[in-house]
Amino acid sequence: MPSVLILNGPNLNLLGTRQPDVYGTTTLADIETMCQETARKLGLSIAFEQSNHEGAMIEQIHAAKGTYDAILINAGAYTHTSVAIRDAIAAVELPTVEVHLSNIHARETFRHTSYISGVAVGMICGFGAKGYTMALDALSERLASL
Amino acid sequence: MPSVLILNGPNLNLLGTRQPDVYGTTTLADIETMCQETARKLGLSIAFEQSNHEGAMIEQIHAAKGTYDAILINAGAYTHTSVAIRDAIAAVELPTVEVHLSNIHARETFRHTSYISGVAVGMICGFGAKGYTMALDALSERLASL
Amino acid sequence: MPSVLILNGPNLNLLGTRQPDVYGTTTLADIETMCQETARKLGLSIAFEQSNHEGAMIEQIHAAKGTYDAILINAGAYTHTSVAIRDAIAAVELPTVEVHLSNIHARETFRHTSYISGVAVGMICGFGAKGYTMALDALSERLASL
Amino acid sequence: MPSVLILNGPNLNLLGTRQPDVYGTTTLADIETMCQETARKLGLSIAFEQSNHEGAMIEQIHAAKGTYDAILINAGAYTHTSVAIRDAIAAVELPTVEVHLSNIHARETFRHTSYISGVAVGMICGFGAKGYTMALDALSERLASL
Amino acid sequence: MPSVLILNGPNLNLLGTRQPDVYGTTTLADIETMCQETARKLGLSIAFEQSNHEGAMIEQIHAAKGTYDAILINAGAYTHTSVAIRDAIAAVELPTVEVHLSNIHARETFRHTSYISGVAVGMICGFGAKGYTMALDALSERLASL
Amino acid sequence: MPSVLILNGPNLNLLGTRQPDVYGTTTLADIETMCQETARKLGLSIAFEQSNHEGAMIEQIHAAKGTYDAILINAGAYTHTSVAIRDAIAAVELPTVEVHLSNIHARETFRHTSYISGVAVGMICGFGAKGYTMALDALSERLASL
Amino acid sequence: MPSVLILNGPNLNLLGTRQPDVYGTTTLADIETMCQETARKLGLSIAFEQSNHEGAMIEQIHAAKGTYDAILINAGAYTHTSVAIRDAIAAVELPTVEVHLSNIHARETFRHTSYISGVAVGMICGFGAKGYTMALDALSERLASL
Amino acid sequence: MPSVLILNGPNLNLLGTRQPDVYGTTTLADIETMCQETARKLGLSIAFEQSNHEGAMIEQIHAAKGTYDAILINAGAYTHTSVAIRDAIAAVELPTVEVHLSNIHARETFRHTSYISGVAVGMICGFGAKGYTMALDALSERLASL
Amino acid sequence: MPSVLILNGPNLNLLGTRQPDVYGTTTLADIETMCQETARKLGLSIAFEQSNHEGAMIEQIHAAKGTYDAILINAGAYTHTSVAIRDAIAAVELPTVEVHLSNIHARETFRHTSYISGVAVGMICGFGAKGYTMALDALSERLASL
Amino acid sequence: MPSVLILNGPNLNLLGTRQPDVYGTTTLADIETMCQETARKLGLSIAFEQSNHEGAMIEQIHAAKGTYDAILINAGAYTHTSVAIRDAIAAVELPTVEVHLSNIHARETFRHTSYISGVAVGMICGFGAKGYTMALDALSERLASL
Amino acid sequence: MPSVLILNGPNLNLLGTRQPDVYGTTTLADIETMCQETARKLGLSIAFEQSNHEGAMIEQIHAAKGTYDAILINAGAYTHTSVAIRDAIAAVELPTVEVHLSNIHARETFRHTSYISGVAVGMICGFGAKGYTMALDALSERLASL
Amino acid sequence: MPSVLILNGPNLNLLGTRQPDVYGTTTLADIETMCQETARKLGLSIAFEQSNHEGAMIEQIHAAKGTYDAILINAGAYTHTSVAIRDAIAAVELPTVEVHLSNIHARETFRHTSYISGVAVGMICGFGAKGYTMALDALSERLASL
Repeated sequence: MPSVLILNGPNLNLLGTRQPDVYGTTTLADIETMCQETARKLGLSIAFEQSNHEGAMIEQIHAAKGTYDAILINAGAYTHTSVAIRDAIAAVELPTVEVHLSNIHARETFRHTSYISGVAVGMICGFGAKGYTMALDALSERLASL
Repeated sequence: MPSVLILNGPNLNLLGTRQPDVYGTTTLADIETMCQETARKLGLSIAFEQSNHEGAMIEQIHAAKGTYDAILINAGAYTHTSVAIRDAIAAVELPTVEVHLSNIHARETFRHTSYISGVAVGMICGFGAKGYTMALDALSERLASL
Repeated sequence: MPSVLILNGPNLNLLGTRQPDVYGTTTLADIETMCQETARKLGLSIAFEQSNHEGAMIEQIHAAKGTYDAILINAGAYTHTSVAIRDAIAAVELPTVEVHLSNIHARETFRHTSYISGVAVGMICGFGAKGYTMALDALSERLASL
Repeated sequence: MPSVLILNGPNLNLLGTRQPDVYGTTTLADIETMCQETARKLGLSIAFEQSNHEGAMIEQIHAAKGTYDAILINAGAYTHTSVAIRDAIAAVELPTVEVHLSNIHARETFRHTSYISGVAVGMICGFGAKGYTMALDALSERLASL
Repeated sequence: MPSVLILNGPNLNLLGTRQPDVYGTTTLADIETMCQETARKLGLSIAFEQSNHEGAMIEQIHAAKGTYDAILINAGAYTHTSVAIRDAIAAVELPTVEVHLSNIHARETFRHTSYISGVAVGMICGFGAKGYTMALDALSERLASL
Repeated sequence: MPSVLILNGPNLNLLGTRQPDVYGTTTLADIETMCQETARKLGLSIAFEQSNHEGAMIEQIHAAKGTYDAILINAGAYTHTSVAIRDAIAAVELPTVEVHLSNIHARETFRHTSYISGVAVGMICGFGAKGYTMALDALSERLASL
Repeated sequence: MPSVLILNGPNLNLLGTRQPDVYGTTTLADIETMCQETARKLGLSIAFEQSNHEGAMIEQIHAAKGTYDAILINAGAYTHTSVAIRDAIAAVELPTVEVHLSNIHARETFRHTSYISGVAVGMICGFGAKGYTMALDALSERLASL
Repeated sequence: MPSVLILNGPNLNLLGTRQPDVYGTTTLADIETMCQETARKLGLSIAFEQSNHEGAMIEQIHAAKGTYDAILINAGAYTHTSVAIRDAIAAVELPTVEVHLSNIHARETFRHTSYISGVAVGMICGFGAKGYTMALDALSERLASL
Repeated sequence: MPSVLILNGPNLNLLGTRQPDVYGTTTLADIETMCQETARKLGLSIAFEQSNHEGAMIEQIHAAKGTYDAILINAGAYTHTSVAIRDAIAAVELPTVEVHLSNIHARETFRHTSYISGVAVGMICGFGAKGYTMALDALSERLASL
Repeated sequence: MPSVLILNGPNLNLLGTRQPDVYGTTTLADIETMCQETARKLGLSIAFEQSNHEGAMIEQIHAAKGTYDAILINAGAYTHTSVAIRDAIAAVELPTVEVHLSNIHARETFRHTSYISGVAVGMICGFGAKGYTMALDALSERLASL
Repeated sequence: MPSVLILNGPNLNLLGTRQPDVYGTTTLADIETMCQETARKLGLSIAFEQSNHEGAMIEQIHAAKGTYDAILINAGAYTHTSVAIRDAIAAVELPTVEVHLSNIHARETFRHTSYISGVAVGMICGFGAKGYTMALDALSERLASL
Repeated sequence: MPSVLILNGPNLNLLGTRQPDVYGTTTLADIETMCQETARKLGLSIAFEQSNHEGAMIEQIHAAKGTYDAILINAGAYTHTSVAIRDAIAAVELPTVEVHLSNIHARETFRHTSYISGVAVGMICGFGAKGYTMALDALSERLASL
């Protein structure tokens, strides 16, 4: 059964418990549940992680090599500033999909640039939590075709 | 039954019949078939259009108002140069999802900018034809929640 | 009797029938009526056209040569992206006035640049439909002084 | 009877008396006369001022509050360099129209930027003295509709 | 006998009939005649087209595949704004030569950039109508050497 | 007793009497009163000036030399455009603190640049009228330590 | 009693013990003592933290929610590179004041940009350790007025 | 006898009396004396003015027309920010020489740009007070050759 | 018989003898032979020079005045860095054609700028050695029409 | 015996075990061995560290003060994004040499900028593992000359 | 007797013999004569050189050390492109004055930048040949005051 | 025995004999001696050249092909301005190492860019004369491994 590491970056642990009027009431745990359900349907196993530490995320990506078949990453604000996470993804050579809850192209200019896009298979943004299950679906198909 | 206009921009008519070694052998007709199947499962009706003319695309977007409930657009190269298509989407106020076959952020710099993103719900890129059915899936859920 | 071609660009056909809370309820037909009234008072004859096609607008400008004495153009979003419309205006050598319903300098940065301004007599923006009759008034005086 | 302050900026006092081959022979006094005639027809009262001092212009704008119903400003070269005049206009909250004798978009690059446009109702440029009466006409209509 | 599509873009239909003091009196028909003569000498067959429509030009390029062996394009103002024409040329994989009547590097800055150059064999500019026959000569030699 | 010149720039005379819903009802006179009270507690004497004229502000800074021991300046919009005020501050070599009522870094881009910061001891922004008494407190301590 | 988290970023632990000729001999412990004294006078309780880890700072900000009423942050060099700290501050919705020991606008260009300013109440820079007690004073007043 | 207006801008009144270790002890009065001596030798009459007010400088330039045959201007910091002074010089059409005491190209970047250079005969910088007499010498020769 | 100086810049002496897999086996001597043949057919006399020295190229251009009727220049890498060669061409006022073996617009960004284009009649790039004979053909026609 | 801290940044732990076809099979342990051998010959003692955490690297640099006489740093991707590591190096005032395995100037543009270079003695890049022993050699000589 | 090397750069040998309608009929020999006369009056000895070779100019500057007391340089087009000439001037540590015949700030943008200004005492431009004698005059005074 | 051409650029002939307080007293001859000693130890033969002429350097690089096995280049100021030297290095296809005496990344911005880096094996800067022997050491190892 193919496996996917779902890696969430800084501040995503607050999801749904802070500013519910802005970001809604869906928590990261809810997203994990949604991903588990989708993964079951797709015949995938997943691991769901969150970290606020750039270095920890790099090491989780390193550890993914040999353990998982693909990565789904929502690197949060590190998307726009971390060349090191980009390099980690490039190094482990696992197919990686980039997900953002909001449409980053419709926000501040400094959020329009992603260091991760250049080494990702593809990007999904603007669909909220749904973006995660869409990404799993896409990864599932991709892994099946390899 | 909710309906979606799927609008394809310039050069996409060539898909699968030119440079198959680069872009694969999936044709736009194949994508339409895939979309029809997905739409049936999701309980959506779809119309599938392609045009190489910026003005024609604008008018197809205008005509979508009152006829369709949402738009899925792959504006091809007009993504990067057409303020007029952006304005048309903004004017009709239909939820719109932007799809690109390739990961536009990993190509030439002039493809990193999208005039459409600022008025779209979200964007999906890099998953080839699969991006269309992902977008339909996301639109279906969104339309159901309105 | 001097004559003026009034040429409207992409998306202006939607005026007044879409987003009335934003753009008001004045339609392009209303503007045409206003222009006809003003033209009668000024002793001008006018033709009033709209197109969503860049190529069609170019050809309408070409055809203006020998038929009309001046051009009033609201090129909509093509203002910011079309070097070809600029070149058409320069080629026919008719006095041309640029009109915009909204104050384009107070909107997004990509609307601050106009390719047309460099070949126009002058520009009027921010006065809504009134800008058209102001432009006719100015053109009338200019044509009389030639 | 609605009233309008017409405020002219630096170097405009020289109009018509210097370089007549370039700028024509219309003086600022001529423009004032034209404005008085137009104002009479429109049922407006006007005051016509000129200053070469940025600070003095700011204070004239301040004084306009409570005395006039609108402002017509040709800020001359201060258009491109004065954030303070912009702030003064924003502070008094009077509808303000920006006028330029020449088409500033067809001149040197440093004249393409206007700090005033962002807080003005609209802008008219390129019509010479005629631009002033066009602006009065537009302001008259706007004041009537408030 | 090798064949070449000669494709002319916006405003080129006006050539020689407008502003003869600036652009000379050579018409597009004259250029076609010159090209026919040169083609006969070189043993080439040519088709000579002009369009003011970006979409039409894209479709003419599509149609060239299988019909012609090479393309000579003078995309006029679309040179500087059309990613879509670039993509069309890249898609059909025909050797393409870019021609401009004037020296675009000695004109306004926005004419210094060509989206087409990146996918063309070479570029010729500044030689007026002569540039077309030079391009045919170069294409003829290239086609012979394949 | 150490003395401080408090110098206010353009438009600050309007404070509290215009747009009270936006800027509150604190007037410049209220700020002067607050500063007088704070100065008394700190054992400082102060002079409180306002001018809308760049040249007048320059001369007030010149005159401060030999009369005051420090300067507190809120140069308003001249902050972003006046090299001459910067040079005046540098010339008199008095310790100078820059104060802004609003957080200038969270406003329009053209307000992010301050010519004054480069020659000031420090900057305080975003605390409204309170920023003035904070600056007096800081200057008092600094003057005591010299 | 209102409480404030004082959060210090990278390298600030070295303060006063390294390069005393440059940065003086005031240590971070001295600043903490000064802050405790000021807090006592103002009727505030404070916690004083330092970290060299971006991720740890993010989590300290998260933990502040529900524990403290405001944040005083000197993010050191992360000021200029961390979108993630900005997002953390925005997420917890606590009034936050930005403090810098030196005048960052008078140093290298890459220190002129602050990601934090956009989500802070205000900023104080250039007053050395004094800036901390000024910030506490301002926060105290703000918290009292809520 | 040809006459020259020597116009000095903001902060130049402080020359020689402030920061003598940096700028030397030559005062503006000393420069005036030097200029008078040089003028006598050259057979020129001169007027020597200084102002800290942009508006006043503009009016002094206006008044020069008809009174003086040339202008020598050291616009100080207004050199880098005043389009209005540039326009005044252009309007009066007197030969104008730009002088700077220091080498402005070897100072901060924002001093490298001069709005005045574009309308001046020439520029002299870096020679201190000597630059004034050099400029008079050059103007004398130029006036003689007209 | 009209004469043309063909001037080749730095590194072109290596042509055909280095990296034949990249640049082919055509040497500069081969190009000279091709040019001689073409010149004979066109009734031109040519001189064929190469230099790696910017200064030497400048002097060859100077010497061309009075000796040749036109210049064909392939300035190699000096194209992108030499204002002095540009000035030399402008000074001698001979019709000059710019040739590049490769399509410089499809290479590194720093090769997209040519200082020479602004003073050349036209430019030919991307056709290899053929570009030289095309340029001779164009110059021949131009010289005949003078 | 002089001592050197060798500090390796993010992703360098993967060296030699990932993508051996790209980066070769030399591991970080191999580099450590090479460094130990070179150090023995040079009479240096070394410590060899690696971390993926920016904060941890900062603290290792802090701890170097008083323990080591110099630093050799390969900060990996943090080179391009970390002002905080730069500040840490500046604070401890130890001679520091920057090493990169690859030639960073020949890679993506965002790798051309190094925040560390401004505070380093020198930089060595492009020589693979050999760069480390070259740096030790240089540091040894430098330490001997102090 | 103090001595000055007068060094002229590329294309200046053509002065007065080419394009006399544009640049006048003054030759470089005429300028040398003028300089000799001025030098005699000032009690200076001069050497007058011209070269079109950047390397030769560098060596002339090197040779000036120990032979001359100052340099007057008109580096022509190398002004804008040669860091090496700048470095040569900095190395020999002779007072150097930069002269340009035309007002380089009123010409093309690429002529606004001078690498030489940063290491020169001062710059004189726009006065034609007169600039040379002005520079000698200034250097004479400076040498006398050392 | 492998051989290396050591090529020094403009102004390096002055090393050690000018500004010894800044650059030290090591001359280029001293560096040559150091290189000879190192080369003997490494079993390399070297040639040591210096030129102030860009064109001469290009020809020395050309001549290196077939004579030497590698190049060590310190191109001095030509590093930042010469595309032609870059092209010469690329053409001869010899492994080339770039050396700079100072840390060019810690100097003026215009020295941060190197045209040579893109075609060099690696770069060493900031180690003074020692950089040369380090480069020889690296080249020796590289040549042995080929």
